[in-house]
Amino acid sequence: MSELRRDPIIGRWVIITTERGKIHPIHANISDDKITAAKCPFCPGNESKTPPEISSFREPGTKKNEKGWWVRIIPSKSSVLRIEGNVNKRGEGMFDLMDGIGAHEVVVESQIHNADYSDLETRQVEEVIWGWRDRILDLKKDSRFEYILVFKNRGEAAGASLTHPHSEIIAMPTVPVRVKQELDGSRNYYDYKERCAFCDIIREEIESNTRIVSENEDFICITPFASRFPFETWILPKTHSSSFEDSQKHEVSNLALILKDLNSRMNRVLENPPYNFVIHNSPCRNGKLSYYHWHIEMMPQLLRTAGFEWGTGFYRNPTPPEEAAKFLREAQ
Amino acid sequence: MSELRRDPIIGRWVIITTERGKIHPIHANISDDKITAAKCPFCPGNESKTPPEISSFREPGTKKNEKGWWVRIIPSKSSVLRIEGNVNKRGEGMFDLMDGIGAHEVVVESQIHNADYSDLETRQVEEVIWGWRDRILDLKKDSRFEYILVFKNRGEAAGASLTHPHSEIIAMPTVPVRVKQELDGSRNYYDYKERCAFCDIIREEIESNTRIVSENEDFICITPFASRFPFETWILPKTHSSSFEDSQKHEVSNLALILKDLNSRMNRVLENPPYNFVIHNSPCRNGKLSYYHWHIEMMPQLLRTAGFEWGTGFYRNPTPPEEAAKFLREAQ
Repeated sequence: MSELRRDPIIGRWVIITTERGKIHPIHANISDDKITAAKCPFCPGNESKTPPEISSFREPGTKKNEKGWWVRIIPSKSSVLRIEGNVNKRGEGMFDLMDGIGAHEVVVESQIHNADYSDLETRQVEEVIWGWRDRILDLKKDSRFEYILVFKNRGEAAGASLTHPHSEIIAMPTVPVRVKQELDGSRNYYDYKERCAFCDIIREEIESNTRIVSENEDFICITPFASRFPFETWILPKTHSSSFEDSQKHEVSNLALILKDLNSRMNRVLENPPYNFVIHNSPCRNGKLSYYHWHIEMMPQLLRTAGFEWGTGFYRNPTPPEEAAKFLREAQ
Repeated sequence: MSELRRDPIIGRWVIITTERGKIHPIHANISDDKITAAKCPFCPGNESKTPPEISSFREPGTKKNEKGWWVRIIPSKSSVLRIEGNVNKRGEGMFDLMDGIGAHEVVVESQIHNADYSDLETRQVEEVIWGWRDRILDLKKDSRFEYILVFKNRGEAAGASLTHPHSEIIAMPTVPVRVKQELDGSRNYYDYKERCAFCDIIREEIESNTRIVSENEDFICITPFASRFPFETWILPKTHSSSFEDSQKHEVSNLALILKDLNSRMNRVLENPPYNFVIHNSPCRNGKLSYYHWHIEMMPQLLRTAGFEWGTGFYRNPTPPEEAAKFLREAQ
């Protein structure tokens, strides 16, 4: 059981797990470096080691929860949200909370035990993207959910508990505060300028041409002007769109290409760094927004973030994004 | 040289170091576990290993930059901000930036090489607090600074580069986004209720009595309702005040007592965890605010924060604050 609790000042929601006996979470991060493919629950042949699959892309004639898939989506075993029940929003004295209702799913991105996007065929990366999109479309039908978050943790230092390539999808009953701030900020910009801030960023980056890592017909990859982390990169669709799931087929292909390309550059320059990426998408109930622009934020984990950053939201980054872009651009 | 750059959407300022040749910051974190007291720049007798001191509390008759101090404040060697020059706020296309003007100081908190607050005399902790206050008062005179941040990183995992007990003070030319959000949130609350949100939290916590760790005449220590991290604790003054530096003498004594007490409980329950704390104080130019309430946020570092949290500001905490409070309360 879990609860979502709202900070009364900032409006930030936190998932609090109300199970007992979990006071030393530091010991819960067990490395799976020694888990061989034979034991890996995400490897083909081990399908019975996971909860029953939600969906999969698989060869015709093969059965659910057996071999034959190339992308497999399953409920997360470590989910702290549960799918059954009502959100039950309520107060407790001055505080606000709701039940920990939501979905937490794992997208197994390949049959290969230790592959990064750079190792996969472009076609396979496309299939992963179609998998994300299918799940978003399905989860958005559930009126209890306000936001569908797609993210990936790769490497133990980035919070991944398993080596086998996987991304995660969390459907939640509230819009995360970081997304709300982005929506508010880009709406303010739009109100003032009558232009999308992200479209302006793309134009500006193309013009100054100092922070572009790569681009293709549909996407641009940049190191943002105010990068929080060394080698932080954003991938933005060149055509304005607030919803990832509205991507056209050629956009899915070009997203796969640029994602695979960025991953391969990152792996070359930074020697296979642990990383996180998050798809920043518009909330479920917002329709098509002229002021918001979906994008991917990718953060290699090279530094520890200490109290200073957490306490203030004021980051120190020792690598200018122009230099990071140059290194990544030249790693071809 | 460094620059402060503003994210055009969120308004978050980032310090970008514009020196070259720092692309692998991960290797910069050198542990000092093997630095003995003889080599430690913060140990008495090694004063010449640090930049000249800004101020110190020392025995009468002893000289600056020699032995005889019990609290010593020096410029940070790793500062990315420089004290000379103008802020030079400007635009670069659509982006906003300013020069990395500011002060970064280190408060050496004791002569003892490896002491935590729980090991120090209460009197010594009081002296550290007076040291913070003196520097805040002094730095606030500089009209270029908008915010003075006092924080501490203890332990390598929390970002401390040296073992010898020290806290840090950073004076910056802009108000950090996290503080701005707190100010906005508490002003909205005040506008609606005509009461300080933090005063309400204190009343609520005293009434429900499930998240109090400890209290004395002037301060209360709680695990906040929407704790982001296991064993996150806040120390709040019971009497409303927006500025730490306005604390009366008895409040400084009681702050020293509750800080030492919390540290000792934390060290007992969590076995000397790495931790960060940050003083949340009102900005330099804000005067006395009826809606803001200064406080300390203390975060033991037990979990890695992964992409999910960074990408969304949506935290998962496996330890309910009520349980954390119980453990800390009983560790007497």
